[in-house]
Amino acid sequence: MKIKRIAFLVFPQMTFLDLVGAYDALRRIAMMGIDPEVTHRIIGTEAEVVDETGLTVKPDSVYEDLAPFDLLYVPGGIGTRKLMHDARLIAYLKTWPADKALASVCTGALLIGRAGYLEGRRATTHHRAYELLRPYCREVVTDQRIVDEGRVVTAGGVSSSLDLGLYLVERHWGAPAREQIAAQMEYRGYPVLPG
Amino acid sequence: MKIKRIAFLVFPQMTFLDLVGAYDALRRIAMMGIDPEVTHRIIGTEAEVVDETGLTVKPDSVYEDLAPFDLLYVPGGIGTRKLMHDARLIAYLKTWPADKALASVCTGALLIGRAGYLEGRRATTHHRAYELLRPYCREVVTDQRIVDEGRVVTAGGVSSSLDLGLYLVERHWGAPAREQIAAQMEYRGYPVLPG
Repeated sequence: MKIKRIAFLVFPQMTFLDLVGAYDALRRIAMMGIDPEVTHRIIGTEAEVVDETGLTVKPDSVYEDLAPFDLLYVPGGIGTRKLMHDARLIAYLKTWPADKALASVCTGALLIGRAGYLEGRRATTHHRAYELLRPYCREVVTDQRIVDEGRVVTAGGVSSSLDLGLYLVERHWGAPAREQIAAQMEYRGYPVLPG
Repeated sequence: MKIKRIAFLVFPQMTFLDLVGAYDALRRIAMMGIDPEVTHRIIGTEAEVVDETGLTVKPDSVYEDLAPFDLLYVPGGIGTRKLMHDARLIAYLKTWPADKALASVCTGALLIGRAGYLEGRRATTHHRAYELLRPYCREVVTDQRIVDEGRVVTAGGVSSSLDLGLYLVERHWGAPAREQIAAQMEYRGYPVLPG
């Protein structure tokens, strides 16, 4: 399935770089003319979302119906510790069809894990959250920055978001698109650095 | 001078990753207890700022007096092409004292260049903006990700913001602080990658 509509989730006490590292790469698909039809929406759990240290974002919508979207992107942050037990958010995430592309970075994995999308799958998260993630997946991967389990891709902590964004670009729009976008971003960490 | 108060400038059609790459590192100085007294403010040219592709931020203030701050951070983005000719913004930037720390990433260099801070200095910017920057500095540096000219530090395009943030952390709070923060961010591109 061609990805045309991307939903970025935002919520209180998120880590902003978890979002923006991948947002920067993915928004360039349309901006740089690689596929001008690709659009995105910033969807919040609230009308205004304040990150861990005060940066305030106004999402395009609140709990918008996810049906029209082709890729759902879930960032992390300390707010996940509370939201992983938030019935409304978890029910909302469960509306995401199992056959559509889903990506998390950092502790966003806790949210999609609680919603059941990592059952039977390998996954990764921020290195300080490995134990928290363990109950929700088949195996916590601790030595890869990106874990691709088909429809569900998880990435490690914070700055892994840049790698995840470029990985999704390459997977869905091809290596030349990824190279073009990484050059525009002046990003040199991809393909993923070892260690 | 010890840096205690950081001002992050935001403006229409900025590149969000230009801001957030360094914001993530610098906000951790306080968040991780390295110096709990360090604070920051997001200062806008407008009450709501929309980036190049629709992400909307509500700054803490609009054209707030810069006098109490110790470090001014200026991101880039396509909006700089218009704002570099905006009399109000350039006059505002000129209120920044020459002896205080000033940093730009990407085409943020065009703004601080127009305000006169790069006169007689070497500087860098996004690789597509070298020619635009040339009239405002002594030399455009094309082979360094970060150019440190004492009080004024400029960085290259977009993802250079992560390197700049960690560079400023190391310079003002020391290498152990930078290592601790880079580990928390799971960032492996610093010290700056060659090429």
